[in-house]
Amino acid sequence: MRSYHLTGAGEPEQSLRLREHPIPEPGPTGLLVRVRAAALNRRDELILHDRYPLPSRPEVVPLSDGAGEVVAVGARVTRFRVGDRVVGSYWPRWTGGRLSTHLYDQLGNTVDGMLTEYAVLDQEWAVGVPDSLSWTEAATLPCAAVTAWTSLTGGRGLRPGGTVLTLGSGGVSLFALQLAKAMGCRVICTTSAPEKAERLLALGADEVIDYRVEPEWSGRARELTGGEGADLVVETVGPATFEQSMRSAGLHGEVVFVGGSAVEPELRIATATYARTMATVRRVFVGSRADLADLVRAVAVTGIRPVIDSVFPFEQAREAYRHYLSGGSFGKVVIAIG
Amino acid sequence: MRSYHLTGAGEPEQSLRLREHPIPEPGPTGLLVRVRAAALNRRDELILHDRYPLPSRPEVVPLSDGAGEVVAVGARVTRFRVGDRVVGSYWPRWTGGRLSTHLYDQLGNTVDGMLTEYAVLDQEWAVGVPDSLSWTEAATLPCAAVTAWTSLTGGRGLRPGGTVLTLGSGGVSLFALQLAKAMGCRVICTTSAPEKAERLLALGADEVIDYRVEPEWSGRARELTGGEGADLVVETVGPATFEQSMRSAGLHGEVVFVGGSAVEPELRIATATYARTMATVRRVFVGSRADLADLVRAVAVTGIRPVIDSVFPFEQAREAYRHYLSGGSFGKVVIAIG
Amino acid sequence: MRSYHLTGAGEPEQSLRLREHPIPEPGPTGLLVRVRAAALNRRDELILHDRYPLPSRPEVVPLSDGAGEVVAVGARVTRFRVGDRVVGSYWPRWTGGRLSTHLYDQLGNTVDGMLTEYAVLDQEWAVGVPDSLSWTEAATLPCAAVTAWTSLTGGRGLRPGGTVLTLGSGGVSLFALQLAKAMGCRVICTTSAPEKAERLLALGADEVIDYRVEPEWSGRARELTGGEGADLVVETVGPATFEQSMRSAGLHGEVVFVGGSAVEPELRIATATYARTMATVRRVFVGSRADLADLVRAVAVTGIRPVIDSVFPFEQAREAYRHYLSGGSFGKVVIAIG
Amino acid sequence: MRSYHLTGAGEPEQSLRLREHPIPEPGPTGLLVRVRAAALNRRDELILHDRYPLPSRPEVVPLSDGAGEVVAVGARVTRFRVGDRVVGSYWPRWTGGRLSTHLYDQLGNTVDGMLTEYAVLDQEWAVGVPDSLSWTEAATLPCAAVTAWTSLTGGRGLRPGGTVLTLGSGGVSLFALQLAKAMGCRVICTTSAPEKAERLLALGADEVIDYRVEPEWSGRARELTGGEGADLVVETVGPATFEQSMRSAGLHGEVVFVGGSAVEPELRIATATYARTMATVRRVFVGSRADLADLVRAVAVTGIRPVIDSVFPFEQAREAYRHYLSGGSFGKVVIAIG
Repeated sequence: MRSYHLTGAGEPEQSLRLREHPIPEPGPTGLLVRVRAAALNRRDELILHDRYPLPSRPEVVPLSDGAGEVVAVGARVTRFRVGDRVVGSYWPRWTGGRLSTHLYDQLGNTVDGMLTEYAVLDQEWAVGVPDSLSWTEAATLPCAAVTAWTSLTGGRGLRPGGTVLTLGSGGVSLFALQLAKAMGCRVICTTSAPEKAERLLALGADEVIDYRVEPEWSGRARELTGGEGADLVVETVGPATFEQSMRSAGLHGEVVFVGGSAVEPELRIATATYARTMATVRRVFVGSRADLADLVRAVAVTGIRPVIDSVFPFEQAREAYRHYLSGGSFGKVVIAIG
Repeated sequence: MRSYHLTGAGEPEQSLRLREHPIPEPGPTGLLVRVRAAALNRRDELILHDRYPLPSRPEVVPLSDGAGEVVAVGARVTRFRVGDRVVGSYWPRWTGGRLSTHLYDQLGNTVDGMLTEYAVLDQEWAVGVPDSLSWTEAATLPCAAVTAWTSLTGGRGLRPGGTVLTLGSGGVSLFALQLAKAMGCRVICTTSAPEKAERLLALGADEVIDYRVEPEWSGRARELTGGEGADLVVETVGPATFEQSMRSAGLHGEVVFVGGSAVEPELRIATATYARTMATVRRVFVGSRADLADLVRAVAVTGIRPVIDSVFPFEQAREAYRHYLSGGSFGKVVIAIG
Repeated sequence: MRSYHLTGAGEPEQSLRLREHPIPEPGPTGLLVRVRAAALNRRDELILHDRYPLPSRPEVVPLSDGAGEVVAVGARVTRFRVGDRVVGSYWPRWTGGRLSTHLYDQLGNTVDGMLTEYAVLDQEWAVGVPDSLSWTEAATLPCAAVTAWTSLTGGRGLRPGGTVLTLGSGGVSLFALQLAKAMGCRVICTTSAPEKAERLLALGADEVIDYRVEPEWSGRARELTGGEGADLVVETVGPATFEQSMRSAGLHGEVVFVGGSAVEPELRIATATYARTMATVRRVFVGSRADLADLVRAVAVTGIRPVIDSVFPFEQAREAYRHYLSGGSFGKVVIAIG
Repeated sequence: MRSYHLTGAGEPEQSLRLREHPIPEPGPTGLLVRVRAAALNRRDELILHDRYPLPSRPEVVPLSDGAGEVVAVGARVTRFRVGDRVVGSYWPRWTGGRLSTHLYDQLGNTVDGMLTEYAVLDQEWAVGVPDSLSWTEAATLPCAAVTAWTSLTGGRGLRPGGTVLTLGSGGVSLFALQLAKAMGCRVICTTSAPEKAERLLALGADEVIDYRVEPEWSGRARELTGGEGADLVVETVGPATFEQSMRSAGLHGEVVFVGGSAVEPELRIATATYARTMATVRRVFVGSRADLADLVRAVAVTGIRPVIDSVFPFEQAREAYRHYLSGGSFGKVVIAIG
């Protein structure tokens, strides 16, 4: 079997190495998973460039996102059996409840991830996926979709009729748009490109604001909500947009701060802005295995189809990274395996 | 102008009297509303028969549910203006937060309701409705739809992918079905009639259980949820179904007890049932004006169309009651006015 | 080393057998614990008599409640080290978040418990206890105190100034009284004995109602709360008191149903009672390891001293059971070990 | 009767004018209150200097905080009667639920406040206070104490054993310290003066950090919590301390942002700080009448005594302002009236 390994900070062409190994055996509580697809996220770019807050293990197999078929199980496995379709959980040891620092492990970062033909996952690290999702679709769920899920569902409770604002068309934003529509909400998206605006509207966006035309887009967001502001803003960018996000949020709104890739050293909020709002700023770190299971169930029931930008073969994983790094994708960049 | 008045417990033919009055003038904070439609609820049946827990005022104008146009406003009115389309709030003095006994007033019970050509509502008692709803549709929202809304949204937070179970096809159940689907949930309904099953499926029900075929329908409900049970049961019946509802709810589920019309003196739960579940039993009393406003917004955003069984002219209000009392309706029984 | 084992349903004199074993070795993630004290709970009585909903393993070492010193650790243990003082968690596999049926294991029931000189606990099953608690005190926390904790803190949020009502002087009730006082609440207790009333007042109870003098004690409870009713009732009895508990709860109150030992087959609530209240009925199943950790922290910070009825030596474990079964204890019955 | 009026931005000696009026009559739902004491808050300083976000009415009677006796009631008053002891609510029209902009009125700012011998309050604006509180104590509750209350109770739920961090010794901080202790929490305070440290410890503080000795006091706060960080930080200062507050909060902590008097234009949070925490930033705007009622009940039950710095006679209201403005007070500055 073959797997990719990260050999140090750098560009995919140098840092991503394909290695040959014997197929591993699962331990007593382990699952041997024949991986069928894996997907890229912003954190994989940060890990590649050694800019992620949690340092990665040397020679780690990258990518948290991946889906595959269970082909062998350890003697004490009770949660799955051979033939089950599974995805791995972003924080494998955070099964539910509150995250704590002693659980800080991440697939594709501190423990081996999914850019491999065979992965061994502990049974507690995996969640089943329904047949209604293709391998390509299933592979996209653990990171960006769970982040969108906890952004929308992890706070005070977003209700149908509420307004959600998303920024741009990254992976979290697109899932947040789709999930918010499935929850009966109205969605306002920002973008900078008319062709992306079209695609956002096709995905269900009620309104799209071009932030190049309206750099002070919070004014437009408030106008579109009758002056009330959004109930929830999924703030996936960071310092560059934070002030506008705060001004877009309603008096009792929530700004969910997801961004972790900012190069700016500081998040700034004008004191005058904060004097006018009781909006809460909430932070999410993807989510637990229970969140992943809930998200998978929601995708199955609502029929959401993850947006796929492109699919690369396993042998072209470096090209997939390169394409992702170029920034022009709309939807998930997936690597098909086997 | 004409309005109906309740002249004591009895049948509609005797107790419901049409009277002629001068058109009233609104006080400083009042709205004069030209009522265009009103709708019947189970509580109106109980009030008619003097079986409602909160005794009604003599000669009260019945019906909490109604919609109309503001045709005059008092000097200090700021929330509305002439031409606005409004509905009245079930508990007019409960604007938001927690209900307390000193706020115990109800439209169509202790204060005059909507079965009238002109109603005077304080501005704090009313909520605007969008043009997208017909008068007939708007009139159905204050009681049953708000009850469905607080049942689904007032607790721990129902999330997309969750399973909701509704009983039969009364007003609250149909709104709960429609709202739960708009929230991305899976809905299981019980019914006793194949033709009603068809209509429930057409409204979006994922599964319908015939409780005459399966009197122990909780077994079927658990089966349909992979043994997990429902996340939320909207219990609109009472003692006759409560045990089955409790058994249908998941380990962390909620049973929302709405029923208030039970003739049985006791609600019973088998100790053995309670030994197996942590399900919460929650109670709703319709909702506040803030809940009504939120529900109206949700209906507008999601495009839910209230199910209308039949529309009677104002002059046939007694026939409308009679039809409602007969129990065969599917959807709201509405009285068109003016 | 010696440990007691349950050899089938019966009385302690027959069913509780002392056996000699070699001191076990902990596995890679295990802790070898020198047990210093263990404590009895109502569930241990039910398990002894084979009336507990979750059937016990043959020859199981009984008692969920116990505290001891870590004397050896497995090679992969990171959470504890030799010398740490620990208690075991009631549901060892429920670390946090939501309980699910695949986690159904219980110390002293399906897995070996604490009535032993040496116990092996997985590191994930244990919680550290501060030096400020004696072994006897620490041993009392896992079952009754955690149940009181989740009863008070697991719902909508009890705030200082709120009123809590507790029934009698069982283990959960006494901890609920102490915790509620530490949370700034007012506490009303019911009892049947003047000498117990004295002890409840000494523990901080604001009011004690003698339910033999006032069998319809909900009237008195409402009177003592200015007609408002209690914010939270810790319902530890079951069918015999449930109706009074419901009537004692405020319009927005909570009745937390803990009782699991009822011999009556049904819980009954008068329809008329339910017509007047929006009180929620919540259910608790002790709590997770995270709840135990939170409770231990709360005990340490607030300086609560668990109430100890009596301490028996290890050799007299059967007498301890017998004393507990007699029903006259006030506070925990503890067995000192080693 | 006499009352003070604000005649424009400036210093108390010029802007605060004493005027003579006839005693007013309450309207149908009004209460005539013989004011017995009033108290100063930071917002009164901002209003005096015209730096408060909500502009004040010309010639307004200042001060939101005051307590007095009902001496006459309007014909339709049901909530109070002559002889009742009451305080006024900060936002008189926000009775409960969610604040909305159409309810933006404030006692002592847009409507006449309590620095007067007689005030007329609508019955919906007032809350009763128990006899156990002196007039001086009761007068201090509406603004700072309610702010401390909503800071501690308005979020995810602070539980006993949790750690609260307060900044300095302003009114909100002292009430937060007292309330948090009454809730069973551990409290860490910052201060700059050894004599204030003594007084904070005397009020129950568990730890006091001198921020002049340790300008990077978040390190010390984390150390004092075993590296876990505080569960809740009551951030009453603003930009100057915000970064330290964020670093002091635990992974799942809350930073409640109260400060509204900051002269700095921006709140800044280092991106690196936010990369390490999921702490929520919550904002409070004092609270509703329901919050005031809950706070008064909590003070009554827990026996908290508001800390009084000094009491000035009505004729020396300007001196009271001057003393408050000097910044050296520890506890509330109160003006006794009548």
